[in-house]
Amino acid sequence: MREAGKNIMEYDTVALDEESGEIVIIDQTRLPGRTELIRLKTAQEIWDAIYLLKVRGAPAIGVTAALGLYILCKDLETDDFAEFLEKLRKEKDYLDSSRPTAVNLSWALKRMEAVAVKAGAEGKSVSEVKELLHREALRIREEDIEVCRRIGEYGLELVKPGDGILTHCNAGKLATVKYGTATAPIYLGQEKGYHFRVYADETRPLLQGARLTAYELASSGVDVTLICDNMSASVMSGGLIDAVFVGCDRVAANGDTANKIGTSVVAAVAKLYGVPVYICAPTSTIDLNTPTGADIVIEQRAPEEVTEMWYRERMAPEGVKVYNPAFDVTDHELIAGIVTEYGVARAPYTESLANIIRIGGSSN
Amino acid sequence: MREAGKNIMEYDTVALDEESGEIVIIDQTRLPGRTELIRLKTAQEIWDAIYLLKVRGAPAIGVTAALGLYILCKDLETDDFAEFLEKLRKEKDYLDSSRPTAVNLSWALKRMEAVAVKAGAEGKSVSEVKELLHREALRIREEDIEVCRRIGEYGLELVKPGDGILTHCNAGKLATVKYGTATAPIYLGQEKGYHFRVYADETRPLLQGARLTAYELASSGVDVTLICDNMSASVMSGGLIDAVFVGCDRVAANGDTANKIGTSVVAAVAKLYGVPVYICAPTSTIDLNTPTGADIVIEQRAPEEVTEMWYRERMAPEGVKVYNPAFDVTDHELIAGIVTEYGVARAPYTESLANIIRIGGSSN
Repeated sequence: MREAGKNIMEYDTVALDEESGEIVIIDQTRLPGRTELIRLKTAQEIWDAIYLLKVRGAPAIGVTAALGLYILCKDLETDDFAEFLEKLRKEKDYLDSSRPTAVNLSWALKRMEAVAVKAGAEGKSVSEVKELLHREALRIREEDIEVCRRIGEYGLELVKPGDGILTHCNAGKLATVKYGTATAPIYLGQEKGYHFRVYADETRPLLQGARLTAYELASSGVDVTLICDNMSASVMSGGLIDAVFVGCDRVAANGDTANKIGTSVVAAVAKLYGVPVYICAPTSTIDLNTPTGADIVIEQRAPEEVTEMWYRERMAPEGVKVYNPAFDVTDHELIAGIVTEYGVARAPYTESLANIIRIGGSSN
Repeated sequence: MREAGKNIMEYDTVALDEESGEIVIIDQTRLPGRTELIRLKTAQEIWDAIYLLKVRGAPAIGVTAALGLYILCKDLETDDFAEFLEKLRKEKDYLDSSRPTAVNLSWALKRMEAVAVKAGAEGKSVSEVKELLHREALRIREEDIEVCRRIGEYGLELVKPGDGILTHCNAGKLATVKYGTATAPIYLGQEKGYHFRVYADETRPLLQGARLTAYELASSGVDVTLICDNMSASVMSGGLIDAVFVGCDRVAANGDTANKIGTSVVAAVAKLYGVPVYICAPTSTIDLNTPTGADIVIEQRAPEEVTEMWYRERMAPEGVKVYNPAFDVTDHELIAGIVTEYGVARAPYTESLANIIRIGGSSN
């Protein structure tokens, strides 16, 4: 099941091996120590991979679920559509239970189900429906690559060769199929010999920056330097940073952006030192129904993430109070641009984001 | 040697047990897991305590060294002053080698030596010199308490009951004999029932905030909440913070302040949210010979502090570049006031700091 010692950049985060009918993923629970590919074939294996965070990042999870539903359905032995659909829905519900809060998971599975329902209504045969599911799963995967690549192209226009780029958390290849969102301009620049100097915030408490971003960038040959989250002012005041690229979990209609805790600290520091902050945002993360960041509820997580992830002993006193929000909201006034697959939105965001969504809708 | 299970606030960080002729310290290497007092009597024990960071923080180290030199000299069996002074100097040089870069260590030992030299020149007997050393060591200790107490009183005037206070690193009781510098206003307020809500940055990479500050404040009954360094914007934007109090390693003549890495990030965030930043600075840390922060050299420390302090495995890829400055410089424009034992200096600092130093000199 395992193929060890791979260079991460030679592999997509999630792929379908057409020959064997298996999903091949990079096992993220082994990072940064080892790059291992694992193969998923059974429903249990796919469910476990998502539940145990072997694959993580909303886009990557969605793609895995779509591919998973396809491979589970393609071997269903029935020519009766009603029976086929019933079994598909069972598999769908099972996969959907692996991480109930991941929006892309439900979204991708619903999209797959809708394809089957529509084809059935049109009187397609089960084998024809299977081929349509095959295409839809691959399309979801290709769309993810394409959205990231376009964000990368638009983002690349905002920087120049040799620039210093700071990023926070992991909005990287490992959260998507191929380019990541915040890392997309970096990877595209790397292909063109831009020689960026990238600084990766370690991103406490869960260290996605140290474990994943520093790992995937270093693995791809990018000049990356790991810093603690409290060193951003030190590198910016020293003139080492020309731009900040970060991902996002949700962008409100006015441009306020919820992203991993600490993003708004980077943005405040960048404001002081005159460094532009760019949010890399697939339009799927732009929520025009959320007027401002104040309307975004922030998840509070377990204190143990802050106090107990350490060698040998607790690193904080027993019983100490801990404030541990998973995300924060970066005010739109601190954001220089929001980079989507349809171009870069600039202030005033209430107008520009609505335009971007309109463009996206008309091009779909 | 060990007295376990103590409440930290019932004990000074460093004290002299006159009866037994031993130094009693809180063993900081056991924190935050256990509060243990240990007793130091031999030169080796004192040296080890400093070298192994059982006692840390420049002021606390200076006091330990001064008390140490006294207890090592008081039992020297000679009536010949020249012989006494020679032996004193041997002990001094030995203690001085425990942490060569700690300024207060050399400073306190030199001050003790000077007392002996002066008394000898005045024809004092060895037993009289011993008593003068006794008094000088206690005076150095009392001065530390007094300086911190006065900083606490001036600092307390800058806040009001119920205020939220954010602090970074440990400029606390554990770095001094009793009140700390940045924590002095908090402890004095606590005595007066001010009910501050304190937020302690964990302070990566070495976690002095989590291990020491959160510990000593919680132990004294202060309402303290531990946060990661990247959460300051989250608490400030939520209106939870009314003032920032931090310590310092060196204050330049123009007010630029070198302190633990991350201080300038806090200051940038505080600036954005209109929260005043106060530097708590004994005048001994104000260096009028350093014109600006640009003249302060910042120590770069080992990458392993960032990449390897974790449970089970490295938390960053092998070979990744790491930027790990121990300190940063906070621009004077981000500082609302510099709190010294002679009052609060305000901008323009080039004038106010020089005045403070003048007041200090004339009152000594």
